[in-house]
Amino acid sequence: MREIRLRTERRSQLVDITREVRDAVAGVPGSAVLVFVPHTTAGVTVNEHADPAVARDFEAALERIVEDGWPWQHVEPGEENAPTHVRASLMGPSVVVPLREDESLGLGTWQGVFFCEFDGPRDRRVHVTVLQ
Amino acid sequence: MREIRLRTERRSQLVDITREVRDAVAGVPGSAVLVFVPHTTAGVTVNEHADPAVARDFEAALERIVEDGWPWQHVEPGEENAPTHVRASLMGPSVVVPLREDESLGLGTWQGVFFCEFDGPRDRRVHVTVLQ
Amino acid sequence: MREIRLRTERRSQLVDITREVRDAVAGVPGSAVLVFVPHTTAGVTVNEHADPAVARDFEAALERIVEDGWPWQHVEPGEENAPTHVRASLMGPSVVVPLREDESLGLGTWQGVFFCEFDGPRDRRVHVTVLQ
Repeated sequence: MREIRLRTERRSQLVDITREVRDAVAGVPGSAVLVFVPHTTAGVTVNEHADPAVARDFEAALERIVEDGWPWQHVEPGEENAPTHVRASLMGPSVVVPLREDESLGLGTWQGVFFCEFDGPRDRRVHVTVLQ
Repeated sequence: MREIRLRTERRSQLVDITREVRDAVAGVPGSAVLVFVPHTTAGVTVNEHADPAVARDFEAALERIVEDGWPWQHVEPGEENAPTHVRASLMGPSVVVPLREDESLGLGTWQGVFFCEFDGPRDRRVHVTVLQ
Repeated sequence: MREIRLRTERRSQLVDITREVRDAVAGVPGSAVLVFVPHTTAGVTVNEHADPAVARDFEAALERIVEDGWPWQHVEPGEENAPTHVRASLMGPSVVVPLREDESLGLGTWQGVFFCEFDGPRDRRVHVTVLQ
């Protein structure tokens, strides 16, 4: 299990971590890579990283799908982050990406791995594990 | 593949199964744990289990994201559960959690594993598999 | 890593690929099967495949959850597919299904594996990998 560390800058922010995931597993033989986010207001997905506008669209869309104004029970003084928990789970805490026979990440042409921040800015970690 | 059995009590109900997952894999060496739900109106996610209000927020939010009142084609007499299939897949049928070197579950400080019931009350099962 | 190829016929279309996944891993010993979609406007899920109306409900529901009419930044001339990226990630790029001791797919009674097209019709691929 290797750890990637990052700093997010906005409340909702998809951060492309494809290169960091690739570096973390370089030279480790296996069949697939597990990318796991150990936070409860952030998730992980795989989607297009050629056009940065796609990441921006995700940030706005998740804020529309799960609205800040809904009645929320998880309310801590000074921390209004209840909807961000749901947004995180809609993206999911884990993705598994296959490895090719040459040990490279089996991503499609347009795909990148994204850390999905919904309650930033924060210091965050991602766990990367090679599976056999 | 080990099996966890549980009984849900409400239509929508997130049930914390972290301890059951931990017990199911205790002492089994490996790199990660696959938690899989073999049902079509229930899913699994990882999110905050410190404050039980977070689980309640998920239950209400999923019922808002996917509305009972939309026109549904999958309608069986006496069983109006079409939207619950979609809610289940939004959470997802599987999550994979890394194992630490000491074989403990690699969950973050606030994270727990939740069985996500959307068509309860029912008797349910969860499959837990250690991956190498 | 084995590859399944398919052709989708509609813009949004869930295609049952259970048999293809089963065939791809037949006779390969392991603990679980990773099903990965290398596209950015398609995903994968596991849900009911007994009643085809469930797949149709997913197609309509995802178009309601993520609306075409929202303001989108990822707009290419002649290609209005921004919302389809988000729909794909709501289903997810990967699912992992356990294998039983007799090496059969550990799906529940009503479950099937679905390729989730959101920007068809297109020629598509799915990567299937057995994990140990």
